[in-house]
Amino acid sequence: MISKVKNAMSTLVGGMLPHGHHQHNHHSGGGQGCGADSLPPRYPYGRPDFLELTPELLQYSTEHASRPVLTLKRASRLPWRTGYAEVINAGKSMLNEDQASCEKLFVRRPSSKHRNSTLPEDNRDGTGIPLHFWGVFDGHAGSGAAIMASKLLHRLIRDRLGEICNLLENPTGVPPICLAKNGSPYQVETKKGASQETEDPDAISDSTVRFHMEKVVSLESLVMGVIETAFTQMDDLIEREKTSYAISGGCCALAAIHLMGKIYVANAGDSRAIIIRNNEVIPMTNEFTPESERQRLQYLGFLRPELLGNEFTHVEFPRRIQHSELGKKMLYRDHTMTGWAYKTIVEDDLKFPLIYGEGKKARVMATIGVTRGLGDHDLKVYNSNIYIKPFLSCVPEVSVYNQDEYKHGPDDVLVMGTDGLWDVTTDREVADAVSAYLSSCDTSDPMRYSLAAQDLLMRSRGVLKDRGWRLPNEKLGSGDDITVFVIPLAGQEFET
Amino acid sequence: MISKVKNAMSTLVGGMLPHGHHQHNHHSGGGQGCGADSLPPRYPYGRPDFLELTPELLQYSTEHASRPVLTLKRASRLPWRTGYAEVINAGKSMLNEDQASCEKLFVRRPSSKHRNSTLPEDNRDGTGIPLHFWGVFDGHAGSGAAIMASKLLHRLIRDRLGEICNLLENPTGVPPICLAKNGSPYQVETKKGASQETEDPDAISDSTVRFHMEKVVSLESLVMGVIETAFTQMDDLIEREKTSYAISGGCCALAAIHLMGKIYVANAGDSRAIIIRNNEVIPMTNEFTPESERQRLQYLGFLRPELLGNEFTHVEFPRRIQHSELGKKMLYRDHTMTGWAYKTIVEDDLKFPLIYGEGKKARVMATIGVTRGLGDHDLKVYNSNIYIKPFLSCVPEVSVYNQDEYKHGPDDVLVMGTDGLWDVTTDREVADAVSAYLSSCDTSDPMRYSLAAQDLLMRSRGVLKDRGWRLPNEKLGSGDDITVFVIPLAGQEFET
Repeated sequence: MISKVKNAMSTLVGGMLPHGHHQHNHHSGGGQGCGADSLPPRYPYGRPDFLELTPELLQYSTEHASRPVLTLKRASRLPWRTGYAEVINAGKSMLNEDQASCEKLFVRRPSSKHRNSTLPEDNRDGTGIPLHFWGVFDGHAGSGAAIMASKLLHRLIRDRLGEICNLLENPTGVPPICLAKNGSPYQVETKKGASQETEDPDAISDSTVRFHMEKVVSLESLVMGVIETAFTQMDDLIEREKTSYAISGGCCALAAIHLMGKIYVANAGDSRAIIIRNNEVIPMTNEFTPESERQRLQYLGFLRPELLGNEFTHVEFPRRIQHSELGKKMLYRDHTMTGWAYKTIVEDDLKFPLIYGEGKKARVMATIGVTRGLGDHDLKVYNSNIYIKPFLSCVPEVSVYNQDEYKHGPDDVLVMGTDGLWDVTTDREVADAVSAYLSSCDTSDPMRYSLAAQDLLMRSRGVLKDRGWRLPNEKLGSGDDITVFVIPLAGQEFET
Repeated sequence: MISKVKNAMSTLVGGMLPHGHHQHNHHSGGGQGCGADSLPPRYPYGRPDFLELTPELLQYSTEHASRPVLTLKRASRLPWRTGYAEVINAGKSMLNEDQASCEKLFVRRPSSKHRNSTLPEDNRDGTGIPLHFWGVFDGHAGSGAAIMASKLLHRLIRDRLGEICNLLENPTGVPPICLAKNGSPYQVETKKGASQETEDPDAISDSTVRFHMEKVVSLESLVMGVIETAFTQMDDLIEREKTSYAISGGCCALAAIHLMGKIYVANAGDSRAIIIRNNEVIPMTNEFTPESERQRLQYLGFLRPELLGNEFTHVEFPRRIQHSELGKKMLYRDHTMTGWAYKTIVEDDLKFPLIYGEGKKARVMATIGVTRGLGDHDLKVYNSNIYIKPFLSCVPEVSVYNQDEYKHGPDDVLVMGTDGLWDVTTDREVADAVSAYLSSCDTSDPMRYSLAAQDLLMRSRGVLKDRGWRLPNEKLGSGDDITVFVIPLAGQEFET
């Protein structure tokens, strides 16, 4: 994410140590994590394990002058022959603030010895319900939150799914509305005193009357809820562990989860995922930005003006207002409006707008350009005590793709990328580039998805010329970190 | 709107007086407007003027046993040969709580003598920018709010548009961001002291620096803002006049405004509008119900728990919880979630859910089944002091149809209807019925749109049999009030 956090951007002092340790970010002004410098890192900086980088290659990956596009060495390294590529930014931060993870896990009932541990180690004996996970994490103001999420989010999801494992194992059934303390379905008896569970038989005796409405909840919406709550738990974990570790910044999080024939795509931030099927684009995500979430943010500022710290107004104006304009009329819109109207300018309108700027430059309280993600608990408005976090949401929007409903060809893919990709390459251009590359490539070549990812990133990064990184059409290439997965939708066929 | 407000539903005592006066609703329990019985009505009960009903026909229009479908006597009565039909409910309320309006108005600059009057009389000399207005208002808990909105909303919109008349007259220009006190565009000068308007030359001297961002606001979004603020003003007016008049209940409001080649469709509630073009359906509205606005309402309940009066919880559960279930786990979702997850039941969860029920039975605080509309300022939860209004929005969602971009045939229409229509007839069925009727009817017949509307309502009402009002397929017909406009999109051609 490029310049997504103004003022709070870290100024790195000292270089990266290529042995997996790095000097902590020092923060200018009112940024994040002040006072955390003395704490150890939660996880050392590095690139995803599946890249299998040597210390020399890790150092090489950060060369802003050459910006090498890194990809997998071995096609068999990732499930489904998943393709991956990444490239560092053009100099806005010392390190690549994007992170990624790709894992095959197994959902199992929690064993009694693990019941009290939040993150049991992965069991690798291959029993349980298979779960595939792909995640891209676009960090800002440091890479700490992105690294931590890339190490843990998939495990949290796996563990939460484990808790409903008995429901997943019986996918034809409808999830019970109520579970007894031992986890088994709990049905209120309609006959007085008929149930051993009954603690208040009088209350139960009229249950047939009181339960005239029972909403049927599908297994799919239960999995969506698991993913949503796992994101929240991940965010809570970052906050909790910040007392013991230095965990810098925040991150957008985009995850795809394959479970029992469906792909759940969960997005919190401005990364994007599209499916390309028969060369047709199917968008799987919406971006969450100050513009797309304007009304939600304004509503919060309206209901809880104390969060604006007497510095900001929840009302939006097309530009800053000068003191001399008091009493004149200016275009505005509030949390209820989509259109614009004129209002007479009063003293309160001279405050800075909560949402200000357009497109990639739109900011919440002049600070951050995304409105969903993980971390950012300490992020404040520059030179103030106003926290941004109450305006951010860690909950993703989850969409579901019913993979089993379609017969997929070898060129049908799910593309997940951080905003560095989509800023310079449209959905259609991505689809055309990937489709063209794949069709020129032997379908039996296990590296084809990684090579397509690499090709896509070289196009989007561009070539360094006198006037910066340029695309073939001479437009500016992406100066941001870029991370992309190209996931074949027929990928299960490659699994043994 | 049928049974949309539980408990607060009025029990009419005494019959309707066919001379335009009626006995006021008496309210059971904690409903609306208690104490207002001694006030005069703001407007007497009646049907839209364009129906030209005699007192005898007005009485006839309320016969629940026969439910006559009323339509226009004369095709020339409404602009564009607009078709209209209505039918009363099957007995849920004494009177038809739907209302409608259709007007041709002219947008003019406010004259100085009218500047301080909020509702200048319509001028009928035909100068100004023509504005066509169609509105359907689906009342609940009385017809007062619906009647008042049908009399005034179009005027408020016309007057607000009058205030930006000079911008509308120059539609190629971009609306200025700032207006001086005299209403003329106000540009901050960049040279120090160059402007007569300057009150603070120092502040202005650096304006080129400070105004690095100026959002361009289109004329279209200004008209949208005018419509949004006019709805808010209408709602404020109902509240204000309730101190002097008896204005019963609330209403959903759906309005279509034709202005300068575009049709703006504004919807606050669960009425619906679709365009039928070449027999293709183009939905123009979304419904606003406890289900569709669940997260907005839950968010408010979460942020302002005092609005829930210690009786309700913002968390949603698939059914009521019994006291005996404390400590067990139950499916839930909060304002951040779309999916469902399990939570351990605590004392607070025993409260009644803010949003409860499914589909047409979903209610806010067990009381109301729509979440946007006008009025309802006094609506309370039965037998409590908890007001519903803070959870309701009076602001419509506005969509724009660029009418001038298309060449419309005589069978291309905009259909606007209250929920009584759409509850029993799908968009597709409405389109097929209207298209079939129109194609069987001479295109020169000026009554064809009203006859199509009448046909549509007879289908949706059904026929009274032993087991109630039945459709040809034996399914239940609509027992609700139904109101529908069928508006030809080539209707301007019929204007002289």
